[in-house]
Amino acid sequence: MRSVCVVGLGLIGGSVLRAAVRAGRPAWGATVSTSDAEAASSDGSDVSTVDEAVARAATADAIVVVAVPLPAVEGVLRTVAELAPECLLTDVVSVKQPVADLVTRIVPTARYAGGHPMAGRSASGWAAGSAELFDGAPWVAVADEETSLAAWREVAGLALDCGAHVVPTTAGEHDAAVARVSHLPHLLAAVLAATGADGGPLALSLAAGSFRDGTRVAGTPVEAVLAMCEGNRPALLDAVDDALGRLGAARGALASTGGLAATVRAGNAARADLEALRSGAGREEVRVDLTDPEAFDDLRSLGTGGGRVLRLDGDVAICDLPG
Amino acid sequence: MRSVCVVGLGLIGGSVLRAAVRAGRPAWGATVSTSDAEAASSDGSDVSTVDEAVARAATADAIVVVAVPLPAVEGVLRTVAELAPECLLTDVVSVKQPVADLVTRIVPTARYAGGHPMAGRSASGWAAGSAELFDGAPWVAVADEETSLAAWREVAGLALDCGAHVVPTTAGEHDAAVARVSHLPHLLAAVLAATGADGGPLALSLAAGSFRDGTRVAGTPVEAVLAMCEGNRPALLDAVDDALGRLGAARGALASTGGLAATVRAGNAARADLEALRSGAGREEVRVDLTDPEAFDDLRSLGTGGGRVLRLDGDVAICDLPG
Repeated sequence: MRSVCVVGLGLIGGSVLRAAVRAGRPAWGATVSTSDAEAASSDGSDVSTVDEAVARAATADAIVVVAVPLPAVEGVLRTVAELAPECLLTDVVSVKQPVADLVTRIVPTARYAGGHPMAGRSASGWAAGSAELFDGAPWVAVADEETSLAAWREVAGLALDCGAHVVPTTAGEHDAAVARVSHLPHLLAAVLAATGADGGPLALSLAAGSFRDGTRVAGTPVEAVLAMCEGNRPALLDAVDDALGRLGAARGALASTGGLAATVRAGNAARADLEALRSGAGREEVRVDLTDPEAFDDLRSLGTGGGRVLRLDGDVAICDLPG
Repeated sequence: MRSVCVVGLGLIGGSVLRAAVRAGRPAWGATVSTSDAEAASSDGSDVSTVDEAVARAATADAIVVVAVPLPAVEGVLRTVAELAPECLLTDVVSVKQPVADLVTRIVPTARYAGGHPMAGRSASGWAAGSAELFDGAPWVAVADEETSLAAWREVAGLALDCGAHVVPTTAGEHDAAVARVSHLPHLLAAVLAATGADGGPLALSLAAGSFRDGTRVAGTPVEAVLAMCEGNRPALLDAVDDALGRLGAARGALASTGGLAATVRAGNAARADLEALRSGAGREEVRVDLTDPEAFDDLRSLGTGGGRVLRLDGDVAICDLPG
């Protein structure tokens, strides 16, 4: 089994390290955070300096997982370029095109495929993580034109070993999608929380489930939200413009005819689509032959259609797709 | 103990009837819904026609609770005007000024104080209700200039008997507050759900907790959301304009400097305010003498400040207020 070197031992990196160990892989980690390093060591993990961990990855031909916030990625890649320039490389950062651009610039010789496990919680740091964090979660493995299939298979294999299923897509499609379903929700939660608090203590004292649910992620640490949202600026602008257009249309309808049916019905139908997709009902099995020259096209189409890779069986990816 | 006559036996009305019975009060109900009437009867509740139930309230000097959606309130009030024109009267509708206006027009002789229990769930109908629905929830009891203190005390007593705490405020302040913390969340959930679904199956397949929480109430039955939001048009317009302004400012900042710190920090602080208020830490006891001519002023100030009435002890309201 491929060894795993995780750089960054916060919530996500710390969970990757533990999940890789759970899967029986040799795995070690490094972090510049003294508190995370101490917590990981005292939990029995194999922790060293970043330089030592990356050099060891070069020797062992391990896959290096960059698990630091976007602003810190460049520094880690410089270490990789120096100590393990041809390593298998992935990352778990929440935007994919900016990381791909950094890899192309700083460590173009690495065998790289980007990744993004869609799991989280509002707490952060090693202590908040667990080996089970990714069980049943989607994990994007980027399959761009220039991605090497060999690197993609390594990332997909790691994600599956961590308990996730794999969603293949391009960096651009990933960034557009998460702008809508992850970054926009954080912005709207912030807007809703502030608009509610503007109503004073009376309004907050009357807040029921709709407000509590709608503002939950406004409690996420500010720096984490900024790193995520500001790092995905062009795609987030598109999503915000779409939301502004819809909210403005609702405002216009409320002011003129008083009717909100179009807005409310569209939201209700969209939520039903989400629930149908999550129920898993009617999904059909699909197999992709990874030796086929068109394999990446097939995988990208699968991801665009809401499909996922459930396991790898030799050269065949066993997948499913909504019915 | 004052008897209770509940007209409308859906989620809220059905729960009021059960909670009143739990408190040991004589209580009966009526509904035009055959299915709710049958379900309530087979659960052992005392159910009759609306005419019979209201006539019995006049004889027993019961408090009549109007628990139908806003569009059906006028019809119920006409029955009350005919059969129990001087009854004690309240309602549990989610907007308060429109109901107060209808009462003034149709049954001005009733001893009326409006109410609004802030509890709910996405399911509806008698079967979804329970005697415990209001335990620990806020229940607004409207204390306008023209409200009779005697009627207000009856409504507050019923709410406390149902396990809620009482928030005294005016109809106008109530409607402005719920526009921000109940109706706007439903609109933003609809906008978020539709914007996410516009990203196609890929986006929905990557949706994590932030999107699921932010769109949960988009799954509420459409007619219930429309009755609630469209019935509170002027206050909801103010709240939507505030949200549009904040989201537009975030859009502008993202497009120009790329920075979202102001938006995200304001949301984070607001969410912290909500959590501090809900923790109950540092709340101070306050007592209001209901025989004091200024009692209603004191109660309204209490509500504006995030305070609540916890029990009535003779002529004294035992309250608390955030520290």
